[in-house]
Amino acid sequence: MWNNTAKVASIGDLVQLVGMRHKSYIFNIVEDKELHTHRGVIKHNDLIGLPFGSVVLSHNESPFFLLQPSLSDILLDLKRITQILYPKDIGYILLKMGIGEGQRVVEAGTGSGGMTIALAYAVGKTGKIASYDQKKEFQNLAKKNLSLVGLEERVEFKIRNIEEGFDETEVDALFLDVMNPYDYIPQVKASIKPGGFFGCLVPTTNQVSRLLHQLRLNQFAFLEVVEVLLRFYKPEPERLRPTDRMVAHTGFLIFGRPLLSELDLDNDNGK
Amino acid sequence: MWNNTAKVASIGDLVQLVGMRHKSYIFNIVEDKELHTHRGVIKHNDLIGLPFGSVVLSHNESPFFLLQPSLSDILLDLKRITQILYPKDIGYILLKMGIGEGQRVVEAGTGSGGMTIALAYAVGKTGKIASYDQKKEFQNLAKKNLSLVGLEERVEFKIRNIEEGFDETEVDALFLDVMNPYDYIPQVKASIKPGGFFGCLVPTTNQVSRLLHQLRLNQFAFLEVVEVLLRFYKPEPERLRPTDRMVAHTGFLIFGRPLLSELDLDNDNGK
Amino acid sequence: MWNNTAKVASIGDLVQLVGMRHKSYIFNIVEDKELHTHRGVIKHNDLIGLPFGSVVLSHNESPFFLLQPSLSDILLDLKRITQILYPKDIGYILLKMGIGEGQRVVEAGTGSGGMTIALAYAVGKTGKIASYDQKKEFQNLAKKNLSLVGLEERVEFKIRNIEEGFDETEVDALFLDVMNPYDYIPQVKASIKPGGFFGCLVPTTNQVSRLLHQLRLNQFAFLEVVEVLLRFYKPEPERLRPTDRMVAHTGFLIFGRPLLSELDLDNDNGK
Amino acid sequence: MWNNTAKVASIGDLVQLVGMRHKSYIFNIVEDKELHTHRGVIKHNDLIGLPFGSVVLSHNESPFFLLQPSLSDILLDLKRITQILYPKDIGYILLKMGIGEGQRVVEAGTGSGGMTIALAYAVGKTGKIASYDQKKEFQNLAKKNLSLVGLEERVEFKIRNIEEGFDETEVDALFLDVMNPYDYIPQVKASIKPGGFFGCLVPTTNQVSRLLHQLRLNQFAFLEVVEVLLRFYKPEPERLRPTDRMVAHTGFLIFGRPLLSELDLDNDNGK
Repeated sequence: MWNNTAKVASIGDLVQLVGMRHKSYIFNIVEDKELHTHRGVIKHNDLIGLPFGSVVLSHNESPFFLLQPSLSDILLDLKRITQILYPKDIGYILLKMGIGEGQRVVEAGTGSGGMTIALAYAVGKTGKIASYDQKKEFQNLAKKNLSLVGLEERVEFKIRNIEEGFDETEVDALFLDVMNPYDYIPQVKASIKPGGFFGCLVPTTNQVSRLLHQLRLNQFAFLEVVEVLLRFYKPEPERLRPTDRMVAHTGFLIFGRPLLSELDLDNDNGK
Repeated sequence: MWNNTAKVASIGDLVQLVGMRHKSYIFNIVEDKELHTHRGVIKHNDLIGLPFGSVVLSHNESPFFLLQPSLSDILLDLKRITQILYPKDIGYILLKMGIGEGQRVVEAGTGSGGMTIALAYAVGKTGKIASYDQKKEFQNLAKKNLSLVGLEERVEFKIRNIEEGFDETEVDALFLDVMNPYDYIPQVKASIKPGGFFGCLVPTTNQVSRLLHQLRLNQFAFLEVVEVLLRFYKPEPERLRPTDRMVAHTGFLIFGRPLLSELDLDNDNGK
Repeated sequence: MWNNTAKVASIGDLVQLVGMRHKSYIFNIVEDKELHTHRGVIKHNDLIGLPFGSVVLSHNESPFFLLQPSLSDILLDLKRITQILYPKDIGYILLKMGIGEGQRVVEAGTGSGGMTIALAYAVGKTGKIASYDQKKEFQNLAKKNLSLVGLEERVEFKIRNIEEGFDETEVDALFLDVMNPYDYIPQVKASIKPGGFFGCLVPTTNQVSRLLHQLRLNQFAFLEVVEVLLRFYKPEPERLRPTDRMVAHTGFLIFGRPLLSELDLDNDNGK
Repeated sequence: MWNNTAKVASIGDLVQLVGMRHKSYIFNIVEDKELHTHRGVIKHNDLIGLPFGSVVLSHNESPFFLLQPSLSDILLDLKRITQILYPKDIGYILLKMGIGEGQRVVEAGTGSGGMTIALAYAVGKTGKIASYDQKKEFQNLAKKNLSLVGLEERVEFKIRNIEEGFDETEVDALFLDVMNPYDYIPQVKASIKPGGFFGCLVPTTNQVSRLLHQLRLNQFAFLEVVEVLLRFYKPEPERLRPTDRMVAHTGFLIFGRPLLSELDLDNDNGK
């Protein structure tokens, strides 16, 4: 379980060991268990009671740092059978959709559960996520990933074709990560509270165009299409430069808000 | 106060009115008060009890949408006397530093309080922020901005030159947004718990180089330098294209983690 | 006339005067003429015989640098009544299409003649450009711009709807900068020599999709879609940083080559 | 030899054969020679007289397209023992420095000769390039590359440490691609004509800062620092999207112009 305020590693804590060449392992500490790495074995018991930030040695003396993972570390390390959302996209989505403590949020599809974890973390103990997917296989993995982090109780998983609609109504926000989001906009509108937040990620420009068209037909306003790009630098103070290559595209983010009335705020004629 | 799960506007709620050409007003509803806009007057009383997503008319019949602002809307709308962090940067910072419910976080400087609001929102009711600045003028504005959003109780403001160090120790994360972060790294290290998260934003490459140098001297590891770029598109389904101009630079983000021992994970010789 | 190897300014030379705040004037030196600037008058006669790189003073003692313009300077300074191509795009187009000495190149539309100048410069004295547009008004301006630079003899202007086709056949390269390039691909194919170069700029993703579709139907291969982005830095050695804002989009460049036979080089089955 | 206006392949012509999966071969046609590819043998004699754009089959019936390479194709295919400049950078450099017919241009270092080819192509038959390098090994390869393209007569190669200065004076333009360009600015200034063009590529921000500092000390004006970024799209009309990864950095381009007098055009005081 992810105890993000701990100073010392305890049984049940989600921890990260980082070894040479930044090879990393994220796992929960279980009494008497062993971690088998590419550079030797580490006993979970040896970690218990150690302060985070310490160095531990494997049985063959390879060094590892004991750390707490950040949300970003967890997402990048996640076991996955689908394409997952990147931290760069999730960070912006959470802010743009105002996700926070106590909210009720719906997502589809669950996929490997990366976005589910981010949403569950952001809504806190009093919030609630409903996560839809058609594939039991995906949700089984997502459940495992959620319980690794200790956030499974905040999420209700539902196996369903969302063409049939969502059970939840008046939710604060709804996020779609599906192939054909443009096919479900009436269902989305029936689920979000008026003025609530809709968000979506699609990889192609053709999908963006189709989605924008449907959002307009269904009176979503404040439409926004944006890409988030990360440019990393080699952290060398005397030879500072961007890395040679970068992730150039994950997807386009589309945001909109369902409204109770129609009104074109861009068009001012007659006033 | 920002009630991010409300469906209907009530007295004391933080609301957003968006009028023609997307001109926007964010304020708390106060009984019997009036909002004077560029397109006429709106009585707060007329908003009370209205569902979010409704259209309201000013005294001269100009239409406005009644909405709840997202964190992104609040940050962009904030009254400011300093350069503020952008949502694109804040979103990534929060994920990368693992900011969440119940944490203790330190920041300096306070500036106009944009980052303070984001941190206070992310740590929830049980978290705590300490925010340092040398200028009383800045913190007075930041306090106003925090109380607009209703998050002032989560933040302790301190007027101090951080060269003297931070009162807090063993904090989960510390973020610097100051001119010369490289001058305070020992103080930073004394405040963050080992294995905790350090983050910083600086605008120039020269500052990045100097900061990286000091972080290494003080045994911070997992150094990362990154820029976040947003590329917006005109949301026109039949004429989809990036906007003509974009914000090309706000700052470089630098992250690192203070460790208990020194160890070069990139260099593998002897193993 | 643009004499790109001169060391000293002479009558008839195309020169650039750059004054305070980088305000720039590009013109041909004419005996006894005067240049009226926002900071005083400069007599053309005073420039004759001056080495480039000199400072000259206007009648009220405002300083100006006497320079030869580069192709980039000329393009950015051009009098225009249409959107023109940017140097960033033109530079890549010329290389990608292999434009060089002695070639025959077709373009449509002429617009304000920016691309025409770049093509005429690149093909040298022995090359030949044919430039098509429907609007006489555009071509009149383009002609003026070409003659300012002294390259008008390399260009044949034709007022025509290119739906009727191009007069030239077997040309080395053809570039389209029109609203609906996808409507003229058979005409394009009839004009370019097999294996020659086709290039095009369009601003929207919808146009890219339509164009790609038509290029495939007409057996163009080696299709490439690319954007060129320039990121400028403030040239301050101690405070080096990207500029705050940038041109985020001018257009998508599409390249392809007409072939004599059909063949799918990406698909390897059966071999 | 690169005959960029040919329609039919002849003995001595530089041609490109492109096979399955876009595997490409660039070479000069030599009577009775054979090309051995990963997919069979092709006789040069079979290419003679064929129109460009044709399909040819290897001895085992693998198809290849017969094409003329563009400058971009040649540069990317070049045999190299050093990092070479990319077409995206070269295209902008040529325009920005106004390189064209009949000019005299100096470059250092020669490297593998990629930039040399581009410069030699751009100055045409009447232009002249002087290319400096300290390593005979590099220049031998560069010579081979130049003669493959048939441009060797336009280039004079010199093996020299440029600390000793350049033989050429009053050249139209000078381009540096060396580790420590900031060490040679007086030598550069002595070689370029006043008002001429200086350009340089360096990979790190530290080098940019040092170079800007030296350029200012030596009265270069109109300093410009810029990066050129290419963003490619998958050319799929129904699934148009940027490629997943991209080249994020090759180098920073720095431009400036040596002047006869000192003058700060940004500072307007007293006027």
